[in-house]
Amino acid sequence: MQWYFVAVLLTTLTSSQGILTTLSQSNGGYKYDYATVPFLAEVFKLLVSSLLLWRECRKSPLPRMTTEWKSVRLYPIPSIIYLIHNNVQFATLTYVDTSTYQIMGNLKIVTTGILFRLFLQRKLSNLQWMAIVLLAVGTTTSQVKGCGEASCDSLFAAPIQGYMLGVLSACLSALAGVYTEFLMKKNNDSLYWQNVQLYTFGAIFNMSRLLLDDFRGGFENGAFWQRLFDGYSITTWLVVLNLGSTGLLVSWLMKYADNIVKVYSTSMAMLLTMVLSLYLFNFKPTMQLFLGIIICMMSLQMYFAPPSTLVDIPPAVKTAPESLREVSIERRTDS
Amino acid sequence: MQWYFVAVLLTTLTSSQGILTTLSQSNGGYKYDYATVPFLAEVFKLLVSSLLLWRECRKSPLPRMTTEWKSVRLYPIPSIIYLIHNNVQFATLTYVDTSTYQIMGNLKIVTTGILFRLFLQRKLSNLQWMAIVLLAVGTTTSQVKGCGEASCDSLFAAPIQGYMLGVLSACLSALAGVYTEFLMKKNNDSLYWQNVQLYTFGAIFNMSRLLLDDFRGGFENGAFWQRLFDGYSITTWLVVLNLGSTGLLVSWLMKYADNIVKVYSTSMAMLLTMVLSLYLFNFKPTMQLFLGIIICMMSLQMYFAPPSTLVDIPPAVKTAPESLREVSIERRTDS
Repeated sequence: MQWYFVAVLLTTLTSSQGILTTLSQSNGGYKYDYATVPFLAEVFKLLVSSLLLWRECRKSPLPRMTTEWKSVRLYPIPSIIYLIHNNVQFATLTYVDTSTYQIMGNLKIVTTGILFRLFLQRKLSNLQWMAIVLLAVGTTTSQVKGCGEASCDSLFAAPIQGYMLGVLSACLSALAGVYTEFLMKKNNDSLYWQNVQLYTFGAIFNMSRLLLDDFRGGFENGAFWQRLFDGYSITTWLVVLNLGSTGLLVSWLMKYADNIVKVYSTSMAMLLTMVLSLYLFNFKPTMQLFLGIIICMMSLQMYFAPPSTLVDIPPAVKTAPESLREVSIERRTDS
Repeated sequence: MQWYFVAVLLTTLTSSQGILTTLSQSNGGYKYDYATVPFLAEVFKLLVSSLLLWRECRKSPLPRMTTEWKSVRLYPIPSIIYLIHNNVQFATLTYVDTSTYQIMGNLKIVTTGILFRLFLQRKLSNLQWMAIVLLAVGTTTSQVKGCGEASCDSLFAAPIQGYMLGVLSACLSALAGVYTEFLMKKNNDSLYWQNVQLYTFGAIFNMSRLLLDDFRGGFENGAFWQRLFDGYSITTWLVVLNLGSTGLLVSWLMKYADNIVKVYSTSMAMLLTMVLSLYLFNFKPTMQLFLGIIICMMSLQMYFAPPSTLVDIPPAVKTAPESLREVSIERRTDS
């Protein structure tokens, strides 16, 4: 399975996620408790991974599984980072409005590049750095408020704390991604075993959150498991399955590709969602969406295309081996 | 004199042009006849070039000057193309509003690239093509109407003729540039002699236009030369001198650099004008200007930076000469 096939699938599913979530709303609100969706998605991913691991265990050779506590204890860390991230996100939104928050979210493309370089020691060419910045610029361009839209000049008007928290949020989001990649690649353990560990902790953390919410509300509506599927429609189940599948694909990419591939997939998905929304929800096409798409396509090409297809490598360097071969042929003719 | 020094000077002067023109207005209108400005600028360029040619003629070796009619007759062609272009521009504006016209003006960056390739047979790498598209995208991004601004959803609302004329306008503008480059480079004639021919025809065409306007108006306000300097202030003279100097620099670039350098200079000038306007005219900074500047800077880097600074050329090719040198040193030690 090639990584770009998985990347395209991730783009499609991430894009459907936005559309399915919108479709699962009724009268602009949720009939179900949205906090149950990520929990059920974690459970779904855990079930799928356990099943696949069980199948793998029945064949020989047995899958590699490191079960020492020294290794297992690293797997809750991504969940912990996401937990901190959620709180920072919440704090940020008390200072800035949602559209500014959305614009700042594009920063995580650049922070992912930086942490990818720093923590995973992966070298990027200058052109690849430029591509990463352009990807962030492209997604931001597509989100620029057009004329006639509400919430004007709010972008540079928020207090400085808002921007600092936005930057922190982008760093935490990147850190979670980069840490997960480190975790998945640090040894040759079976992907499914790594997933089982990751999602067990994920499910526990998500469940704790639901319990905490119940506790805060004084169990007024009963415990979460009593109303887990309340208001669920087929679309809600599709949202859960889709979110779970997206997670499994991200996990695969973290092991066999990298964070940058994931960042491109999800950025392209955002643009795809915007294009599909034009048709599905009768949104108006904007100039900035069109420009954003061109910029991101250029960025994609700059990052992934083999350098030799982009620039002309100097002929002196290129023909060197050929001229050497010619010399040797001449010598042979002489002797 | 390095071409990039001239390019930076052109950017500065082109940028001042917009600001000086705004400063030369009083109460949002012109006190003087704006059509006299390009005519006087042509006369200024003709005077400067004649003076420089005369100085060159006093030294030896004498400057190369082709005076055959076969060569001279090519020099009015750029003026003729500009004349057609002006009329197409006028026709376009009957279909689309000025802000759409301005946005479409960025197309000339791409058409210049295409005609540069087709007519001047200059090869561009894929990265350079991408850079040219990004330059057009960047300048367009900076011009996207923000929220709160007037003239909404007019961008996709004009009749198709408007867009077709806009494309024609972009092609004519590019053709004039590419043809001038062809003219300046086709032989080793003195730049000043080529300029004298170019500006003589330029002055004649501009004068004809003024005369035609007088004729159309039935000489109600008298002939143009009777009111040539009416309402001229020092700022108006600066506008004339600045426009003339800009023309001389473009001419130099056409001979010693190329159309793409000119396109980058003038695009950067547009952004510089927008930034300076923030301070001078208290314009509000927009997200789109900020994004446009980043995109254009990336484009500049992509087009002009040596490929080896952008991508890592495969180490096998790169280290070949060094390993050869090492081998020869080892042999020397052996003997």
